[in-house]
Amino acid sequence: MQRAEPQSFERVLSSMCTEPHPTARKAAERFLATNPGDPGTYETVADLEREAVERLGTIAGLGDPAGYVTSGGTEANVQAIRIARNRGDTDDPNVVAPEHAHFSFTKAAELLGVELRTAPATDYRADMDAMTHLADDDTVAVVGVAGTTEYGYVDPIPAVADLADAVGALCHVDAAWGGFYLPFTDHDWHFGHADVDTLTIDPHKVGQAAVPAGGLLARSPDLLDELAIDTPYLESRSQVTLTGTRSGAGVASAVAAMDALWRDGYRETYERAMGNAEWLAEQLDVRGHDVIGPELPLVAADLSIPMTTELRDRGWRVSKTGSGEMRVVCMPHVTRSMLRSFVADLDWY
Amino acid sequence: MQRAEPQSFERVLSSMCTEPHPTARKAAERFLATNPGDPGTYETVADLEREAVERLGTIAGLGDPAGYVTSGGTEANVQAIRIARNRGDTDDPNVVAPEHAHFSFTKAAELLGVELRTAPATDYRADMDAMTHLADDDTVAVVGVAGTTEYGYVDPIPAVADLADAVGALCHVDAAWGGFYLPFTDHDWHFGHADVDTLTIDPHKVGQAAVPAGGLLARSPDLLDELAIDTPYLESRSQVTLTGTRSGAGVASAVAAMDALWRDGYRETYERAMGNAEWLAEQLDVRGHDVIGPELPLVAADLSIPMTTELRDRGWRVSKTGSGEMRVVCMPHVTRSMLRSFVADLDWY
Repeated sequence: MQRAEPQSFERVLSSMCTEPHPTARKAAERFLATNPGDPGTYETVADLEREAVERLGTIAGLGDPAGYVTSGGTEANVQAIRIARNRGDTDDPNVVAPEHAHFSFTKAAELLGVELRTAPATDYRADMDAMTHLADDDTVAVVGVAGTTEYGYVDPIPAVADLADAVGALCHVDAAWGGFYLPFTDHDWHFGHADVDTLTIDPHKVGQAAVPAGGLLARSPDLLDELAIDTPYLESRSQVTLTGTRSGAGVASAVAAMDALWRDGYRETYERAMGNAEWLAEQLDVRGHDVIGPELPLVAADLSIPMTTELRDRGWRVSKTGSGEMRVVCMPHVTRSMLRSFVADLDWY
Repeated sequence: MQRAEPQSFERVLSSMCTEPHPTARKAAERFLATNPGDPGTYETVADLEREAVERLGTIAGLGDPAGYVTSGGTEANVQAIRIARNRGDTDDPNVVAPEHAHFSFTKAAELLGVELRTAPATDYRADMDAMTHLADDDTVAVVGVAGTTEYGYVDPIPAVADLADAVGALCHVDAAWGGFYLPFTDHDWHFGHADVDTLTIDPHKVGQAAVPAGGLLARSPDLLDELAIDTPYLESRSQVTLTGTRSGAGVASAVAAMDALWRDGYRETYERAMGNAEWLAEQLDVRGHDVIGPELPLVAADLSIPMTTELRDRGWRVSKTGSGEMRVVCMPHVTRSMLRSFVADLDWY
């Protein structure tokens, strides 16, 4: 493997993954050969998974949480929709979500045979009138996003939960990326703020655990029962995950990262990232670009030059929103000096 | 994380996971912070994934294979059934499989809204008369298992493929566990032996890669197109995986393991494991137990004592089949001296 070098994060501005915290990396390496999908055989990592869920519950305002460590936000979102579909009393289930919901909801709908109804947004947040218009008796879940993938904005979660309640659907919040930044903001986003049923929050994004460590939380264990499949020839009885064999590395590193960083470490990470995002927004603004955000540490800007190729040649990894804006995700590995170099390179063109 | 110790493999006889090869472990550690789900950003690991699929194709008799590195056998099996469902021209799709098919097919059926029809087996292998009886115009896939989870037996794959062909369905082979042992046997199991459309083969089992590294292979890329979901705001265009963010560690370690072990290393592993399984079968047989196998390195025996608790207390991890037989999986980490100790402990009771 000497021939291939892993991606360095030195110029990565496009990813919602980041360099794991050193303690998290160490834990991942130690637990590389364990399988939390077989808790009868791999007991230690099964215990660690319970700790991971406990800590995620603390962050997301839920005492005594149900849930598990998923392969990532996609699995958590798919499973939330699967719970809602299986719980719903309809042959023609639909899910109502804002148009900026992550593409994993499209995947979930295709997989699960559920209709996905997406409502236009207003000012990059879910438009509750449009959402309400789409919801009906066959709606099994209403989705809100706390930290959108494209712009980092936060939907009005209490209103999303109210709509879910009004139509007898489950309320799912996707805080896959935002969940480790939001505790240090004034946003209402979690189980303690609204009648949320399920929530996605990924340790392997801002939580600084190693991939794969996503998180699905549920208000009560009976919600997870909707996912149970019998498991003969394992020592355990049933399995709720989407995958079977799973990485103990992700689970162990999630616990290690949260032990090391919750709460002050994550607060410092948030403040630094938000400071960087505000600095970048200001730099782009003074150069005459239309800037969107930052509401959380993510900046999008309508750069009119077709610059991604040139920037890639200089090593930068940036991506674009569906509408074509340049998008910079201020992850923990993104420093002020990276952003200074980036802005200097933008000026050069 | 000092307080928790990962499971040692010293007494694990129940798992289809194993200690990764040292080179595979090193590669996993180096690529811990990469995401093959975002190939535009993480180019090196995307290249490695193409190499992994190429090597898996070589092992499974398929030049120029389509496929990808999954989170494990469950994802690969789910995706194969999803391909078949999406390709099938019916509103009421069913899948025909032998009763010993892995529980991931139950999960797939529940997820995807497909009816799973399971046929009784004869002598632990798919009974083709029973399978044929269940197949009809709405059958979208016929499944064969090459190395069953419970007994390690191999279904008659050419006959399974013929049945699939006869009813216009896809043929899927689950060689998740068996795939790295079968090349050194006389069994017909792969793309070169029969008209197989999709096949599951997991580097993180007998392939000795780190979890998560499963494998889905498809005879042609258009089969994978059935899984494609658009991915705005990634630099790539679409995504076929079930999960989104994925572990670069699994991909890199799969390539490293196959580089190190294909072909002679895997042959030695097979011969040692099969020798161990035959030795264990003989030991149990002379003690008067009814032994099933080994057809591949897996031994099941009808031990009449309720012994799992006592064995667990002595550190052994064994599991039972659905019919209650004790089941020992001879993975690469299982040595003759482990089995000697195990048999001695059985004698003690």
